Amino acid sequence: MSEDSLVTESPRQPQLPSAELVDAVLAAVESGDAARLAGLLEPLHAADIADLLEQIEPDSRERLITLWGDRIDPEMLSELSEGVRDEIMPLLSPAQLQRLGDELETDDVVYLVEDLDEPVQEKVLEALDDADRAAVESSLTYPEDSAGRLMQRELVTAPEHWTVGEIIDYMRASDDLPELFYDVILTDPRMHPVGAVALSRIMANRREVPLASLTHEDLHLIRADQPQEEVAYAFNQYHMVSAPVVDADGRLVGVITIDDAMGVLEEEAEEDMRRLAGVGDEEITDRVWEIVRLRFPWLAINLVTAVIASLVISLFEEELRAVVALAVLMPIVASMGGNAGTQTLTVAVRALATRDLTASNMDRVVLREVLVGLGNGLAFAVIVGALGVVWFGSPMLGVVLGLAMVINLLAAALAGILIPLGLEKLGADPALASGTFVTTVTDVVGFFVFLGLAGMLLL
Amino acid sequence: MSEDSLVTESPRQPQLPSAELVDAVLAAVESGDAARLAGLLEPLHAADIADLLEQIEPDSRERLITLWGDRIDPEMLSELSEGVRDEIMPLLSPAQLQRLGDELETDDVVYLVEDLDEPVQEKVLEALDDADRAAVESSLTYPEDSAGRLMQRELVTAPEHWTVGEIIDYMRASDDLPELFYDVILTDPRMHPVGAVALSRIMANRREVPLASLTHEDLHLIRADQPQEEVAYAFNQYHMVSAPVVDADGRLVGVITIDDAMGVLEEEAEEDMRRLAGVGDEEITDRVWEIVRLRFPWLAINLVTAVIASLVISLFEEELRAVVALAVLMPIVASMGGNAGTQTLTVAVRALATRDLTASNMDRVVLREVLVGLGNGLAFAVIVGALGVVWFGSPMLGVVLGLAMVINLLAAALAGILIPLGLEKLGADPALASGTFVTTVTDVVGFFVFLGLAGMLLL
Repeated sequence: MSEDSLVTESPRQPQLPSAELVDAVLAAVESGDAARLAGLLEPLHAADIADLLEQIEPDSRERLITLWGDRIDPEMLSELSEGVRDEIMPLLSPAQLQRLGDELETDDVVYLVEDLDEPVQEKVLEALDDADRAAVESSLTYPEDSAGRLMQRELVTAPEHWTVGEIIDYMRASDDLPELFYDVILTDPRMHPVGAVALSRIMANRREVPLASLTHEDLHLIRADQPQEEVAYAFNQYHMVSAPVVDADGRLVGVITIDDAMGVLEEEAEEDMRRLAGVGDEEITDRVWEIVRLRFPWLAINLVTAVIASLVISLFEEELRAVVALAVLMPIVASMGGNAGTQTLTVAVRALATRDLTASNMDRVVLREVLVGLGNGLAFAVIVGALGVVWFGSPMLGVVLGLAMVINLLAAALAGILIPLGLEKLGADPALASGTFVTTVTDVVGFFVFLGLAGMLLL
Repeated sequence: MSEDSLVTESPRQPQLPSAELVDAVLAAVESGDAARLAGLLEPLHAADIADLLEQIEPDSRERLITLWGDRIDPEMLSELSEGVRDEIMPLLSPAQLQRLGDELETDDVVYLVEDLDEPVQEKVLEALDDADRAAVESSLTYPEDSAGRLMQRELVTAPEHWTVGEIIDYMRASDDLPELFYDVILTDPRMHPVGAVALSRIMANRREVPLASLTHEDLHLIRADQPQEEVAYAFNQYHMVSAPVVDADGRLVGVITIDDAMGVLEEEAEEDMRRLAGVGDEEITDRVWEIVRLRFPWLAINLVTAVIASLVISLFEEELRAVVALAVLMPIVASMGGNAGTQTLTVAVRALATRDLTASNMDRVVLREVLVGLGNGLAFAVIVGALGVVWFGSPMLGVVLGLAMVINLLAAALAGILIPLGLEKLGADPALASGTFVTTVTDVVGFFVFLGLAGMLLL
């Protein structure tokens, strides 16, 4: 930046906290040096301070919050992950709580208090002024993970007959505008939204132009009780930057902005990924015991399916005793099936989430997956068939391996696409535990077909 | 909406195309009824038309584009997935191409042409006017998936000494403003950005207020050669809505808006998910042969690791011959290890992507994963130990199963966390093929330890 810049405060480039900075912060906390701590945190963006807090030990976190005192950055709190948020909120002093209502939008306050125990939530709400408290309490009446929780109450509306000049005069005179907003929402006298005008269109037009002539072509209304993943989908699909939220009577109750939707979009993609891998809602800051507890059920389900696979194998003890090569080779067919099934499953789960897989193309996608399974099944049948011949010198063993491979990759394709489609049809999350269902199918089919064919053709 | 609404054109609620609508569109295409086709597509949002095109067969797609003619919606083209886009672009008539430059921002045109063959790309660029063509060509000089490809050239700047009144007068007089924008970028005389002012802050202040006093606290500059995932990360982390893009000399060359960043964020999360599952860059519209080809290499890698596991098993042919129960039970230990390793791996890959796993907390997270592995290892050791006793009536077999389980879940934890950390350290994508590496470790360790212990303790 040039030295003679007219920009009074030089804007800061946000920066991730380095390992050195983390160490310096910890040293300040250790020595109880409040001024040094504030000096170190001051230049950081709220989101980066939140990351820093998530990366240090719970004890240090607690001491840091106390030492930070009423210089605490309330924005930082709304950037915390849920686990750390719920750990820190009960620690806040009345002076720290005081600043929440003053500096945060209602959606951020809702995020901070929604999972707190009743008494702590009460304490936080009491620190708010009446209007803010009423707004937060009303948002809390909407279901968790709904648009009503995500929206902020602070918004700018105008009667539908206003002009550019009128809204500009109104905004200049108002001392209660939201910190950042992108649209002015036009409403009829009963507070039903009838259009939205982007600020850039207001600025580009003369004072006498009616706002009603400048509205976006699309008005995407969000119902307060809509699930947040639908909201995120709509923002992403329609490139919206903000959207009015209405109650059951169609009356305007708030606005959702794209930064909230972006967070949800990432959260939802991450949830799919975790569910496919059999990981619950754990966070990187959770303690050992909690993670053990969260992962146990998924492993337990996997154990059940592994035992089922073992039961299938035990049907063929005679064959295994007769030809030990079967025990050596049988995991290959099962493993390839599991892998191919996971490929299909992942593609199907994502396509369902992004609504690229619908009733219109379902038949075609299922057929395609079956053909892909057949294609790769044939390719690998040749390869493992050759392997059986070369390794064990038995052409018939090669035939058994090859046939089992084709059949199991077909089973993998069918399981990988039909299981998520079936779960979706039943109203369940197509990602939930479907990985385990798919590998159960490919293990059972893999072992059964390979050992069964071996029994028929080799013995 | 009330009937006496002043909003001239009633804004439409975007809506996903239903299966019936898709059928109606296909019927119109079949019968060559251009007016009916235009009538059906007209009420749809460009993004929804793009989805519709992706869901029908390639032949119908081609006929639809031809029939749509110069009433085509250019926005729709920029909403297409890459595969369908590259299939449609060469089909466009000169009249259709003409409309691209008139109606799209430069970033959208760049997206449309970046992967086209030279002659087709040339044809599209020729249809643009000189300024647009120069802008698009200059964007194409930046690397693929970089900020320079993502940015649009259309932006609003002001000299740093301007006031609110001056920028409002300038914008009202200009007939060349971008369709939507959120910030005015302040620049020094050499076009270095020195600050950005949100439109909402301009609107909230009086004409004589200097813009320099209204800038955002943070100015996050993006370098044109930065990878797009860094851009998406910054938008999500810092809740930005638009950001100036600068060249190597720090001069302003464009602007990136949050809707572009949101698309990238979803793409990147999806890429991690696909890579963990061993799926490449395929799309739901790809043909069978292409998908077979894209998935084959991952399955081939899996085959190699499965063969390695088989080689490990073959070391213990003697034990397997002696105790056939070993063949029945051995997949259990391997399968549980694979599952636990995938859990750890998924958490680690996501934490690296969201930068929640850093040098500051790495040691603690590794230790935590090992303890989680130990915790669940002990829990399942007891369960499978009991299973060995109950099923096969052999306490020693139970001990072997239990010990192997603990050791393999520890190996799973170490592999699940150290493999992605190692890949990251080497500058590789931590998601890439790491699932296969992890299951190789858990298969090899699982079979080796279980059969090895059985050899020592049972025979």
